[in-house]
Amino acid sequence: MAKEKKMVEQITSMEEDFAQWYTDVVIKADLIDYTSVKGCMVIKPAGYAIWERIQQELDRRFKETGVENVYLPMFIPESLLQKEKDHVEGFAPEVAWVTYGGLNPLQERLCVRPTSETLFCDFYKNEVESYRDLPKVYNQWCSVVRWEKETRPFLRSREFLWQEGHTVHATAEEAEERTIQMLNVYADFCEQVLAIPVIKGQKSEKEKFAGAEATYTIEALMHDGKALQSGTSHNFGDGFAKAFGIQYTSKDNKLEYVHQTSWGMTTRLIGAIIMVHGDDSGLVLPPRIAPTQVMIVPVMQKKEGVLEKAAELKEKLSEYRVKIDDSDKNPGWKFAEQEMRGIPLRVEIGPRDIEANKALVVRRDTGEKIEVSLDEIDTKVGELLETIQKDMYDKALKHREENTHVAHNWDEFTDIINNKQGFIKAMWCGETECEEAIKEETTATTRCMPFVQENIGDVCVHCGKPAHKMMYFGKAY
Amino acid sequence: MAKEKKMVEQITSMEEDFAQWYTDVVIKADLIDYTSVKGCMVIKPAGYAIWERIQQELDRRFKETGVENVYLPMFIPESLLQKEKDHVEGFAPEVAWVTYGGLNPLQERLCVRPTSETLFCDFYKNEVESYRDLPKVYNQWCSVVRWEKETRPFLRSREFLWQEGHTVHATAEEAEERTIQMLNVYADFCEQVLAIPVIKGQKSEKEKFAGAEATYTIEALMHDGKALQSGTSHNFGDGFAKAFGIQYTSKDNKLEYVHQTSWGMTTRLIGAIIMVHGDDSGLVLPPRIAPTQVMIVPVMQKKEGVLEKAAELKEKLSEYRVKIDDSDKNPGWKFAEQEMRGIPLRVEIGPRDIEANKALVVRRDTGEKIEVSLDEIDTKVGELLETIQKDMYDKALKHREENTHVAHNWDEFTDIINNKQGFIKAMWCGETECEEAIKEETTATTRCMPFVQENIGDVCVHCGKPAHKMMYFGKAY
Repeated sequence: MAKEKKMVEQITSMEEDFAQWYTDVVIKADLIDYTSVKGCMVIKPAGYAIWERIQQELDRRFKETGVENVYLPMFIPESLLQKEKDHVEGFAPEVAWVTYGGLNPLQERLCVRPTSETLFCDFYKNEVESYRDLPKVYNQWCSVVRWEKETRPFLRSREFLWQEGHTVHATAEEAEERTIQMLNVYADFCEQVLAIPVIKGQKSEKEKFAGAEATYTIEALMHDGKALQSGTSHNFGDGFAKAFGIQYTSKDNKLEYVHQTSWGMTTRLIGAIIMVHGDDSGLVLPPRIAPTQVMIVPVMQKKEGVLEKAAELKEKLSEYRVKIDDSDKNPGWKFAEQEMRGIPLRVEIGPRDIEANKALVVRRDTGEKIEVSLDEIDTKVGELLETIQKDMYDKALKHREENTHVAHNWDEFTDIINNKQGFIKAMWCGETECEEAIKEETTATTRCMPFVQENIGDVCVHCGKPAHKMMYFGKAY
Repeated sequence: MAKEKKMVEQITSMEEDFAQWYTDVVIKADLIDYTSVKGCMVIKPAGYAIWERIQQELDRRFKETGVENVYLPMFIPESLLQKEKDHVEGFAPEVAWVTYGGLNPLQERLCVRPTSETLFCDFYKNEVESYRDLPKVYNQWCSVVRWEKETRPFLRSREFLWQEGHTVHATAEEAEERTIQMLNVYADFCEQVLAIPVIKGQKSEKEKFAGAEATYTIEALMHDGKALQSGTSHNFGDGFAKAFGIQYTSKDNKLEYVHQTSWGMTTRLIGAIIMVHGDDSGLVLPPRIAPTQVMIVPVMQKKEGVLEKAAELKEKLSEYRVKIDDSDKNPGWKFAEQEMRGIPLRVEIGPRDIEANKALVVRRDTGEKIEVSLDEIDTKVGELLETIQKDMYDKALKHREENTHVAHNWDEFTDIINNKQGFIKAMWCGETECEEAIKEETTATTRCMPFVQENIGDVCVHCGKPAHKMMYFGKAY
């Protein structure tokens, strides 16, 4: 038991130092390693397997809505990046520049894509001629680079993995419809697969994407009361189309500009899973995203028949993602290790269990231990995985509800900021100047104007002017 | 029929100009588009879907052998690239260099990975401590950059997609075993899924990978008689381990160097599929790799009941990858388009077919038309897909056999080079100087020393010195 204790002790407790707890978990759960390349990380097998599950689940949902995958270059010529004014202002300060190809300086420098709107526009310009070519609903899975000054694993790194969808449509209505459709795909994925409840809403003018007409977002609340933007979907209107000259001939033979959208989710989601569900024993993975759902741990595995029975059990549970830990570590160490890695269910089986035709099933989320007959263990494990998935969502929702406050005036707002944590719902006048003042005074930012508005007042929480929008505010990652 | 003809006429015939035929097919089959970034392409949905199928099939085979996926940074600091002498000499002249991050010059420039041996070594150095940590069998799917002067879609581009496996082992034997194991995975994949027969063998000293102890390769023969290196697997011995200091403590408590391998396959495989199986009507896809295996084309689709019957048929064929082309193009145009895109089977169904309870099934590879009763069409389609897969492999094998020649002396060698095409089997002394002279005089290079050696002589085909190795020679892509 000494070793087990040692492993757990290597993690700082959440209450003591949440940031350090987070760093400890990503390392101790074997998700990443640091590298010689500042601000870039290695995503190790346990981390990458989570990303593969995210990819599978999202990609299937995308394809059900008609999305097709493509791959565009990782380089953007400087002149192309500069074509849309707001976009270049937003991204140019934080891109990496390639200036040499082999031994020769390049005539025009190339940036490593921070996002691919400009490349997709350059592509669609040649691809779209008539209304018959519309819509195009393309997506790519790739890595992107943003030269951030401060980095944290998964949450903010100089290179990260993501998907970026880029679509072109004949009408403004169709583009808006696709923008909202993909936001809903993201929200459903977060809630149903990651067990993370999200607020759907619209970003303020100040917080929207560089070059977009409207940015929609899903915002989630982390365990420490900070907000995390977990997915965004942008409606570009015809702004990029005009900058790049993407036109089509309509049914009545007129030349029209297309309307565009883009939407993305990133490896940041792994950070969200950690910070919403994790505890002082490490990672806790929702069953639907867990690369391994059940870990069988043989007890006294050198005794005759134990490993054979464990293998039999694995076969019986083969409809789930199941593994056996038959390494030569002691059971206590294995228990702690599987807990650290967040595996939803542990099944212990030893000589006495075998004799009694049962096994001990242990829930990662609650620690609950359940004796289960080997005859019905496959059904029982399925039920437990469903229960854990639901309970984890309910727990996260309860935490968010307990940490969401209404502020009717500035005193209430500052009181919440200073003495509580979490989301603040408040009325806001809609002026960027006022939004900046709130940030300046409290470090809280507008997270979104939720689709579901509530009647909580009619004057701005900060400046007192008439206000028609209820916003979510919060401190954010 | 005018339009159908037009579409076919847009392709140059293979016999007239193979290179132009290739370029025409990649464009007309909608696989790629050119971009504003010289030497980089857009892989369009029809092309990317083939890559996704390749990924799925390879990834499953990798995982069955214990491979785990990871993701390492796309940047390599210059000092890291320089650690292994042969490796830096091989790659430094053709990498892209990042010199600016945002607005600031970097202290040390970073190259965009041309391959990731150095990054994996830097990672393993910290990851491996004891024999208990071995082996590590990791792979990553990513894009890499090599600043090529002349580029061709899929075959040679400045950026391409690939997988790179990198493994570390305790012993030289285990590393050699893994190197050969992965070469066999590649060969089986090419033969069974892509219907491309390959020669397995070892590269010469001159042609081996920069920094490797031994490079193994699979070589395929294209329709025009040129060779294409289709996958490579390298045994590094402990050379990189010594350069990077990757050591482990053995069971008897000694400090030892690890032994390493790497192996890769790329989007170049799509070029191989095109050049082995394509014809003057366009692409021909082997059923096991085709993203769409069956295209249902409704004839007189505006007549009552035709589209409904087509949908019913699609449902009946749902165990295959099946689509309906119900666009408003005329059937002749659709036929030509599906042929261009290489879809293995076309199923035509119109009012008269429905009345007779049958459909017309057309094979892409042979053009054969088969009347099939709707009652047994699901079984029949399955059989036909298997037959096509087998026939395509047999045809490619026959082509290779007919274009493989033995040269016993230099006259025979030059006669084959000047008057025939394909692989040349010949004895070779093993001297790099002689190999270079052969290339100089004929443009033919050593492709590989095949695992299966034949007794065709005992003196070098070029210099006449004693020779113990039979090599495959050929002009190559």
